[in-house]
Amino acid sequence: MSDSRFFTKACELSLDEIVAITGAAIAPSQTTQPKLRKFSDISPLETASESDISFLDNTKYLSEFETSKAGACFVREKFASRAPRGMVTLISEEPYYAYATIAQKFYPKEKHEALISPLAQIAKSSHIGNNVRIDPGVVISDNVKIGDGCWIGANSVIDKAVQIGDNSCIGALCSISHSIIGKNVTIHRGVHIGQDGFGFAGGRKGITKLPQTGRVIIGDNVEIGSGTCIDRGAGHDTKIGSGSKIDNLVQIAHNVQIGRHTMIAAQTGISGSTIIGDGVLVGGQVGFSGHTTIANGAKIAAQSGIMTDIPAGATYGGYPAVSILDWHRQTATVAKLSKRKPQNKLSDE
Amino acid sequence: MSDSRFFTKACELSLDEIVAITGAAIAPSQTTQPKLRKFSDISPLETASESDISFLDNTKYLSEFETSKAGACFVREKFASRAPRGMVTLISEEPYYAYATIAQKFYPKEKHEALISPLAQIAKSSHIGNNVRIDPGVVISDNVKIGDGCWIGANSVIDKAVQIGDNSCIGALCSISHSIIGKNVTIHRGVHIGQDGFGFAGGRKGITKLPQTGRVIIGDNVEIGSGTCIDRGAGHDTKIGSGSKIDNLVQIAHNVQIGRHTMIAAQTGISGSTIIGDGVLVGGQVGFSGHTTIANGAKIAAQSGIMTDIPAGATYGGYPAVSILDWHRQTATVAKLSKRKPQNKLSDE
Amino acid sequence: MSDSRFFTKACELSLDEIVAITGAAIAPSQTTQPKLRKFSDISPLETASESDISFLDNTKYLSEFETSKAGACFVREKFASRAPRGMVTLISEEPYYAYATIAQKFYPKEKHEALISPLAQIAKSSHIGNNVRIDPGVVISDNVKIGDGCWIGANSVIDKAVQIGDNSCIGALCSISHSIIGKNVTIHRGVHIGQDGFGFAGGRKGITKLPQTGRVIIGDNVEIGSGTCIDRGAGHDTKIGSGSKIDNLVQIAHNVQIGRHTMIAAQTGISGSTIIGDGVLVGGQVGFSGHTTIANGAKIAAQSGIMTDIPAGATYGGYPAVSILDWHRQTATVAKLSKRKPQNKLSDE
Repeated sequence: MSDSRFFTKACELSLDEIVAITGAAIAPSQTTQPKLRKFSDISPLETASESDISFLDNTKYLSEFETSKAGACFVREKFASRAPRGMVTLISEEPYYAYATIAQKFYPKEKHEALISPLAQIAKSSHIGNNVRIDPGVVISDNVKIGDGCWIGANSVIDKAVQIGDNSCIGALCSISHSIIGKNVTIHRGVHIGQDGFGFAGGRKGITKLPQTGRVIIGDNVEIGSGTCIDRGAGHDTKIGSGSKIDNLVQIAHNVQIGRHTMIAAQTGISGSTIIGDGVLVGGQVGFSGHTTIANGAKIAAQSGIMTDIPAGATYGGYPAVSILDWHRQTATVAKLSKRKPQNKLSDE
Repeated sequence: MSDSRFFTKACELSLDEIVAITGAAIAPSQTTQPKLRKFSDISPLETASESDISFLDNTKYLSEFETSKAGACFVREKFASRAPRGMVTLISEEPYYAYATIAQKFYPKEKHEALISPLAQIAKSSHIGNNVRIDPGVVISDNVKIGDGCWIGANSVIDKAVQIGDNSCIGALCSISHSIIGKNVTIHRGVHIGQDGFGFAGGRKGITKLPQTGRVIIGDNVEIGSGTCIDRGAGHDTKIGSGSKIDNLVQIAHNVQIGRHTMIAAQTGISGSTIIGDGVLVGGQVGFSGHTTIANGAKIAAQSGIMTDIPAGATYGGYPAVSILDWHRQTATVAKLSKRKPQNKLSDE
Repeated sequence: MSDSRFFTKACELSLDEIVAITGAAIAPSQTTQPKLRKFSDISPLETASESDISFLDNTKYLSEFETSKAGACFVREKFASRAPRGMVTLISEEPYYAYATIAQKFYPKEKHEALISPLAQIAKSSHIGNNVRIDPGVVISDNVKIGDGCWIGANSVIDKAVQIGDNSCIGALCSISHSIIGKNVTIHRGVHIGQDGFGFAGGRKGITKLPQTGRVIIGDNVEIGSGTCIDRGAGHDTKIGSGSKIDNLVQIAHNVQIGRHTMIAAQTGISGSTIIGDGVLVGGQVGFSGHTTIANGAKIAAQSGIMTDIPAGATYGGYPAVSILDWHRQTATVAKLSKRKPQNKLSDE
């Protein structure tokens, strides 16, 4: 049950509606369930009550599932028989996806009031769309264009000529410059976009700086987590494709290109001119050395150190990263060899 | 000697007072020291003068100890005999702790003036306690509760219904939402607490977002370093227990639970639903994969990649992390095997 | 070609001028090139047109070089013969440095207008130099000194007694306390300097805090990337030498000393009391354990875990880090041993 001081529920849903929205199937043994039975909230398994919907997607939580008081639960077919009595099992091949879909009905994206704070400083030459909310302390410079339905959070700073598409939300305390940002983009708080990349040339006369003359281009439906930094391009643009999701405290260097529907977990660092394809999954704290290419659909384990190109669909891990099977084999080999030491000649030397 | 433009000393202390406060013992050979001798400051060994108190806690600095001009020095008994002439040796089993205790006397926590800046924007429905300082540019939304004696730094943004306990300090440029924060908490600058976690479900229809309906609950006496991000829970709450200390640029994902008196060094990343117990020590740049449990009193070496549960009191290191002895053995084995290469058949293939 | 909404070109340059500025040599076969031929911009190889100057510095881009439409290109002598027809090859031993030098002519550092925003809050006891720009929302406390020609970005917070040298730029949303900063320093957005270090002493009575009574001292011509945190010293000062360049999201702990002309890439973490010399090159996501010394001219591979001192000029890599040759050997050994498994006795056990 969510804290009503922070969250507002939009509706209740009947079992019938839940099935219709998600395409889940009520287990055959349970088809006598009243189709108009109402559910009023989502909840994790442990804390759910009979009016809540829950989900099981990770077998680590099977015992929580078996003892949950949830009224209904999205679950894969093979685990449905382990449900406790009284739980309606909603069979789905994608239980977490189904749960998220229902959660969005209970908790739709918060609508903001259109309101321009008198404590914001907005250049006259900027163009602010309709139904925009601009919070106190925001600074918007010349020739900025903000689309309809946008929300700019408190104390954020938008530099000259930046463009932000319709229905995008910029959190509090962000800075954005040299950027063109799409529609329905969510940028969380404390994100810095468009600053100089780390472009220095070292020579006999010392270190000199390459002026960074590219931009940041962000597609539609992108989400960017708190504290993330995205440098503008050195000459090319830095690009993030539509539908991609970036977590907190990620570093994206100049000229990086990220494709569509790619997900990058927290604290990953992507060095300059790296190209990452569509539908790539990147774990947390991964490091990419510069000028590498990661093809579509690749998956990269957390903390990997990527020093080479990665082919389409491949899964990599390790430092330096290799194919995931090779990495597991390496890890197992080292573990085995190090345990043999006492009776091994290797240790005699 | 601290720079008086930045720091104000509160007092001088006599040798007698220092002994009384810390429980340290003056070395027997030195008991003729005048008990009323005054000390006026703390200092590292190299820069200390005869009116300063210093400490030796790391044997790397033994040579600095042997040549220090410090008037007095907290030191373990076994090193006391190596003190230079004229230094009063204050025998303690916890020299650094004793030094910190005395340092707090010279430099007590800065008292702030109770003052609400007219340049702050504070919702009428919020409740601000007594003796609170609110700096310019702060934005406080509806139904926020700020306890007595709090300090909210410049340009910080506190969202609706957030609660902050008595005598807590929020640094400049922080954002806080969906959170309940305890007493005597110190949050340094640029910290973001309560934003959406990275909760996306991937399915055949693409990526969809799970609304994040949990909160962040922070206990008493917690300290959180600059640039750290703490996401609110997805369904459960994200929790940080009383007395825990978090360093800079740490990522704490949704549903993470951290116990009491746990210390986490900089740039560590804790994935979703990880549970960390009481009194755990975590080095810098450690990564925790999600849904793992770290039991009380565990210690984790810097840069480790934690992929499994860790038992109480265990010390782990490596990537992937194993018990610290296994890791040292693995490291030694790899070093040894790689050096044998030239004369080894392995290299003939 | 840069986007004129964001960037303003200062000039055109003739071939003669380019040669004079950079010291590059026109390839002998091309000395009939008109010396007054004008160039109007810089560009990467792929997007360059005949009025653009480009460069080749990484052999990964040789094929882009061979098909580039750039009018002229800085290139090492050995690759000049592979230039496409019509391209003027400008022979240089430091093509990237030469390119950066010319880029600075086309795009000199932006001049800011001297303007103190009426929406900034500036203490009367502070001293603001001539030709300073202070943006809206800035908060400057007592006794701050800001040199001539400085620029303080929107919503930044400068605490009491901080000194900033002439012609330094502080980006938006920075916080600075307890610091003395040199001339011509560039601090990007969202940087936090001078907060408490992570100084806690653990003892039988629990965790206690050591008051942090040092400062941050930053030399001239330093550049610090977005989101970076630099803690003030515990007793000594935290120091960054002149000419050093720090990338985004770097953590610099209390008492760290960094020399001159050292470069540190993104997300690196430097633990307390580490000493790094002059001209050191540090890759991204490196971790330094505390109290180590890195001598002048050392180079450290990305993601390394430094646990020991590093001698002058040495190159290190790995976790734990060893000399780069040893690391490569270790990596190769592990890869080889793990592949031998099927036919190897080791796997029989």
